[in-house]
Amino acid sequence: MSHPARRKPEYHKINKDLFVLTYGALVAQLCKDYEKDEDVNKYLDKMGYGIGTRLVEDFLARSCVRRCHSYSEIIDIIAQVAFKMYLGITPSVTCNNLSRNEFSLILDKNPLVEFVEELPAGRSSLCYCNLLCGILRGALEMVHLAADVTFLQDRLKGDSVTEIGITFLKKLDEKKYRRKK
Amino acid sequence: MSHPARRKPEYHKINKDLFVLTYGALVAQLCKDYEKDEDVNKYLDKMGYGIGTRLVEDFLARSCVRRCHSYSEIIDIIAQVAFKMYLGITPSVTCNNLSRNEFSLILDKNPLVEFVEELPAGRSSLCYCNLLCGILRGALEMVHLAADVTFLQDRLKGDSVTEIGITFLKKLDEKKYRRKK
Repeated sequence: MSHPARRKPEYHKINKDLFVLTYGALVAQLCKDYEKDEDVNKYLDKMGYGIGTRLVEDFLARSCVRRCHSYSEIIDIIAQVAFKMYLGITPSVTCNNLSRNEFSLILDKNPLVEFVEELPAGRSSLCYCNLLCGILRGALEMVHLAADVTFLQDRLKGDSVTEIGITFLKKLDEKKYRRKK
Repeated sequence: MSHPARRKPEYHKINKDLFVLTYGALVAQLCKDYEKDEDVNKYLDKMGYGIGTRLVEDFLARSCVRRCHSYSEIIDIIAQVAFKMYLGITPSVTCNNLSRNEFSLILDKNPLVEFVEELPAGRSSLCYCNLLCGILRGALEMVHLAADVTFLQDRLKGDSVTEIGITFLKKLDEKKYRRKK
C-alpha cells in the first residue's frame, strides 16, 4: 500500500443510505443471535475481517496506490483514500507513540450510524461499527501487516468523537524502504 | 411518487463493494440462523420492508419526483430513478397484463451478486436478493401503494436474467389523476 497516484473513474458509486440501513439490519440480527455484546463485537470483527480480505485487492487495483515506506504513510492512505472511497469521509490521523506504530483515526462524522440515535437498550458495550475494525485488520493482513484495530472512543457511547485505534504489531524495516533523496 | 424533476447533488455516494460484501455477510448469517430457505427468504423480505419504509422519505426528498398518474409511471420511476440512485443500474421494464398492474423489472446485471458465483450448497431455493423485494414493498406501502413483490427469475438459479415481479394490488383511479391536455 502507499501513495495515491492517479484515480480510476468512480463508476462503482452508489447511494450510501441503502448500505447504512442494511448494516443496521445486520447488527440487529447479530444482537438477536448473541446475548453478550462482546460476542456481537467479536462476530462483527470476524465478518469484517472476511470482507477486508476480499476488498483489499479491489482497493489496490482501483486506488493505484504505490508502495508505502512507513506506517504513517499507510495510515494516511487508509484515512485519505480508503475511507474516502468506501465511506465518503476522511478521518483525521494522530500518531500516539514515539515508535510510530500506534495511530488513531478520528471520525468527526460516522456515516454508518446516521440512522442510529443511540445503542439498543441493554447493549451499552456494543461496538456498533466493529465491522470497520475487522475490515481494516483483514485488509492490512492481506498486505502482510499485522495490526490490532479497536474502537477507542465512540460517539454512540457518549464520547465527543469516534476514534479507531490501529497498532501495527511488527516494526517496519524502514531502512529497507527508505527513499533515495 | 412520479416523474423526476430536478436532481439534488449526489453527495451521498459511496463505493458499492463494501455494501455488496456486507450484504453477503448478512445473507450468510441468516443462512446460519434459519435452516429452511423459505425462512431466510421471508426474513430478508421482512428486513427489506423495514429498510424500504425508512428509505422512501429520503428518496422522495432527494429525487424530487412529482406525483405519478399511473402504475406505469411509478414503475418507470422505480427503474430509472430509484434503482439508478441506490444500486447504480437501470432495469428494463415490462408490463405483464392488460389491466396494467403487473410489471417486471428485468436486471441484466445485478450488483448485489457481483461477488457471488453460485448459491450456497443445499440452498437452491434461496432468493439471495430478497431484501430488494422487501424494500420495494415497504417503500411502496409508505406511499399507500400495496404491492406483491417477488423474484420471478434469478441468474443465480440458472435463469438468463434476473426478474423482479411487482403486482399492484389496488386499481389506481386513473381518471382522478388524469392530466389535463
